Amino acid sequence: MIILGVDPGLTRCGVGVIEAGGRRLSFVHVDVVRSDPSQSQDLRLLKIWRGLSEKIDHFAPDVVSIEQVFAQHNVNTVLGTAQVAGLAMTAAAQRSIPVAVHTPSEVKLAVTGNGTAQKIQVERMVARILHLNKLPQPPDAADALAQAICHALHPAGELQGGERDQHLTAAQRQWAVAVQKSRNTSSKMRGRGM
Amino acid sequence: MIILGVDPGLTRCGVGVIEAGGRRLSFVHVDVVRSDPSQSQDLRLLKIWRGLSEKIDHFAPDVVSIEQVFAQHNVNTVLGTAQVAGLAMTAAAQRSIPVAVHTPSEVKLAVTGNGTAQKIQVERMVARILHLNKLPQPPDAADALAQAICHALHPAGELQGGERDQHLTAAQRQWAVAVQKSRNTSSKMRGRGM
Repeated sequence: MIILGVDPGLTRCGVGVIEAGGRRLSFVHVDVVRSDPSQSQDLRLLKIWRGLSEKIDHFAPDVVSIEQVFAQHNVNTVLGTAQVAGLAMTAAAQRSIPVAVHTPSEVKLAVTGNGTAQKIQVERMVARILHLNKLPQPPDAADALAQAICHALHPAGELQGGERDQHLTAAQRQWAVAVQKSRNTSSKMRGRGM
Repeated sequence: MIILGVDPGLTRCGVGVIEAGGRRLSFVHVDVVRSDPSQSQDLRLLKIWRGLSEKIDHFAPDVVSIEQVFAQHNVNTVLGTAQVAGLAMTAAAQRSIPVAVHTPSEVKLAVTGNGTAQKIQVERMVARILHLNKLPQPPDAADALAQAICHALHPAGELQGGERDQHLTAAQRQWAVAVQKSRNTSSKMRGRGM
């Protein structure tokens, strides 16, 4: 199964592609789709739209996994980030490719075992899991690979309530409880920002 | 000149089209592109993307004018609204059609003379300006027509600083000062929400 992970951003949008055969994960591709901050918003979005569409067409993933954007997170950039996430969803849906969404905490938890891990810890674990000889390049695309890894290890992350629990092994249920806990923490953090 | 106004929304996205010959404005079309709230986000965005793309292809506007989305405005729906605004921008840019953005206050000010006008006042003025025999239907698409009217009357609204001032008549400069005042008020309101 080919998983294309997206770390949405208007200036730099990370794209990471892995192949998952059971628990065995292999690195396929990592890159950043960029737009020029001096251009107008519509031209920047078009640039990202075209870049994401090309990546999806080239790698023909079985699923596109996108980092969840929160309304209260980094108010200066959140609208552009949300718009890029929306473009990634639309580009996938246009090709009838399923879309998954995982929160940053879920991704960190899945990759490092710690939902509040530092960026460098995530990068190191991404390199270890994918058997890379060095940290993934460019460094800020590691989050897109981490997003894809998270989906490979815990595809049920985006399913809701009872529907999810029916399909989980004991270990996956344990993980789901930890995710739920980290989501509750995020909600509280968002609550404080309102 | 054909102007296509967009009132972005994920459940209901207003589209209003007018023809502007100088100060003479004529009604062309008004509609709402809908998505089903019970569907997943990616399928909803795809539905809106296709609906907006069809409208733009059909009416071939000279400009697409979109309501400005603010990060602090209605936190429950802002991400979906921003994503739809992003799709409208991308669809326009894909066809090399210029994009304009006007704030709700600018639109109310341009249409009614009052930047804090009520919805019904905006609807009545839209009907009067476009010589409609009744209020625009569906009612919540009136904002899309108002957006298009705002752009027709004050196309310089989205230009910045000195670039704008060079092109303004005395009356437009007066209007620009009022817009700036309403923008500052909006900023303060956003500041309170943080």
